[in-house]
Amino acid sequence: MAMISFARGVPAPECLPVADLADCARSVVERDGTTVLSYGPSPGYRPLLDWLAERHEVDPARIFATNGSLQGFVFLAQRLAPGKRVLVERPTYDRPLKILRELGAEIVPLACDDDGLDPDALEQELEAGDAAFLYLIPTFQNPSGRTLPLDRRRRVVELAEQHDLLVLEDDPYGLVRFEGEPLPSLHELSGGTTAYSSSFSKTVAPGLRVGWFVLPEPLATDIAATATGTYITPVLLGQATVFEFISRGLFEPNLERVRGLLGARRDAMLAALDAKLPECETSRPDGGYFVWLTADGLDSGELLQRAEQAGVTFVKGTDFGGGADSMRLAYSFVSPAEIADGVDRLASALLASPATA
Amino acid sequence: MAMISFARGVPAPECLPVADLADCARSVVERDGTTVLSYGPSPGYRPLLDWLAERHEVDPARIFATNGSLQGFVFLAQRLAPGKRVLVERPTYDRPLKILRELGAEIVPLACDDDGLDPDALEQELEAGDAAFLYLIPTFQNPSGRTLPLDRRRRVVELAEQHDLLVLEDDPYGLVRFEGEPLPSLHELSGGTTAYSSSFSKTVAPGLRVGWFVLPEPLATDIAATATGTYITPVLLGQATVFEFISRGLFEPNLERVRGLLGARRDAMLAALDAKLPECETSRPDGGYFVWLTADGLDSGELLQRAEQAGVTFVKGTDFGGGADSMRLAYSFVSPAEIADGVDRLASALLASPATA
Repeated sequence: MAMISFARGVPAPECLPVADLADCARSVVERDGTTVLSYGPSPGYRPLLDWLAERHEVDPARIFATNGSLQGFVFLAQRLAPGKRVLVERPTYDRPLKILRELGAEIVPLACDDDGLDPDALEQELEAGDAAFLYLIPTFQNPSGRTLPLDRRRRVVELAEQHDLLVLEDDPYGLVRFEGEPLPSLHELSGGTTAYSSSFSKTVAPGLRVGWFVLPEPLATDIAATATGTYITPVLLGQATVFEFISRGLFEPNLERVRGLLGARRDAMLAALDAKLPECETSRPDGGYFVWLTADGLDSGELLQRAEQAGVTFVKGTDFGGGADSMRLAYSFVSPAEIADGVDRLASALLASPATA
Repeated sequence: MAMISFARGVPAPECLPVADLADCARSVVERDGTTVLSYGPSPGYRPLLDWLAERHEVDPARIFATNGSLQGFVFLAQRLAPGKRVLVERPTYDRPLKILRELGAEIVPLACDDDGLDPDALEQELEAGDAAFLYLIPTFQNPSGRTLPLDRRRRVVELAEQHDLLVLEDDPYGLVRFEGEPLPSLHELSGGTTAYSSSFSKTVAPGLRVGWFVLPEPLATDIAATATGTYITPVLLGQATVFEFISRGLFEPNLERVRGLLGARRDAMLAALDAKLPECETSRPDGGYFVWLTADGLDSGELLQRAEQAGVTFVKGTDFGGGADSMRLAYSFVSPAEIADGVDRLASALLASPATA
């Protein structure tokens, strides 16, 4: 019995526009090879940076692209976090937590509910002392799938202004929306003053490793210097391939296709959970990769072993700073049929659990 | 008058095999797209790692490839250098110096002569205390162009064994040899125990950002974890494109072509220096990118301004930890005709100098 993975926050292979990207890669090397194949500026491939600057309506000097957005988070955290308080959502993406921990930051987890970050909790911590920055994923959050509503977004932006707080809004999933109207980003609501990061991993392909940041200007210059001193130039081939993909008008149609593929997976996940695990609470994401499941008396660490014996795996909530009664279920990588089977297996493991039996 | 740059340690555009790499990039995405375009293992693209392991006659678990070899040096230095002594050649490549300085390492520069690192100086410092590692570029060194002869290589390996010293041999230029017999690497002489790093920047194309390391096994595993926590996966597209280039049998013929192009530049540089600046001492490299120039009473920092006014630029020796009387001249980027003109301009700036007039 092959393991069904609800652990991998990775796009299903059919999401990857392989044939188009193959031709885009060839084409950029042929057309712009002496740029793409040589050392270049550390903020990245100029045409892509210009496109991003226009899209975000900011000066191109505020944009830089890295080999995946996590690398940019490392640059930023190295510069700002050591010995400082850093505010994060509870739960939040585990990799930034690990990076902050290793840099000796004091991680301050902020309470969240079904609507994401609680602005009152933010205000309270801001009154308790200074913070290097607030890191949050307001749309289709990793791991919870939750989205911060408009009124809370406004409130977070106001609090940041009042307390002169740097906000880093990580937004890799925002465009992967299956239904409902897009919400303005904190970056937009703040008139472009907050920091923003995103990636082409979920909209084009993760293996190209193209993430980008919009930063306040002195910070962008500092980070560019750190990038130069770390890798001289990011991999321009990946960035130029993404730019070619966009220039050919393939970005939006591909995104539409990806939304369809992932939306069907989200539907399969929620339908199976409703049918097989009605006693569990789950988030109801309108997009992204993840469902957050909680259940009274659940010990997801204890469950994980039995679940894996039953042929299904997930990530336990404590890995994200969440409670022992929670887990992250990724529906992005598996097929709708596998999702149904996986939830069946999860349900049998859960029903056999001493805690919830 | 366009500036002639002896500062850029970058291959001339005609060194880049543009058309072949365009087709290789297309081909790897078409054939292996779901691997190349997705997240993968942090040590890099498996077929390339296997090829490198075979070439170095080591277990593949000891190899990892990074987005340029500098990134790997950062990983290694982050883990080993903070608060520790790190031994380096004087002069040496400026970027590692900067990285070590920022990490709070105690940099210990070791005396070098025309034959590179003086093993007696190494022995003396090893007796003075422990060191985290020795970083050296034994072949066609950056910035000096010097090559460590066989007897000194043996001695360095012996000293490392006696003192249980980790040696990191950085070898990006070794294959770019214009004449003479290749020397065994320290890695080979040590029976594979010393650490080794290199890159495809000088043999294929720098913009692909593919560097690699051969490390002792526990260290390789540690670094792979650091890489995962920094960028999840390196850019597989660049690594797979290099692997395809190799698989098609293009690596050796391209290297032969690059050797010809760069050898002609080295010839032009030495001929012009001999003719126009016979009073200066220069290294006589058999390969690589650089000539090291020294002259009695020279103040290369002071000269640089006037040289740039005369339309030629270089990097002053002090940037590499060298003396004020030294400079690095890169012949890799400019054409032979530009090299002749550039040395003319350098000579007029130098002759107009108050110090050497």
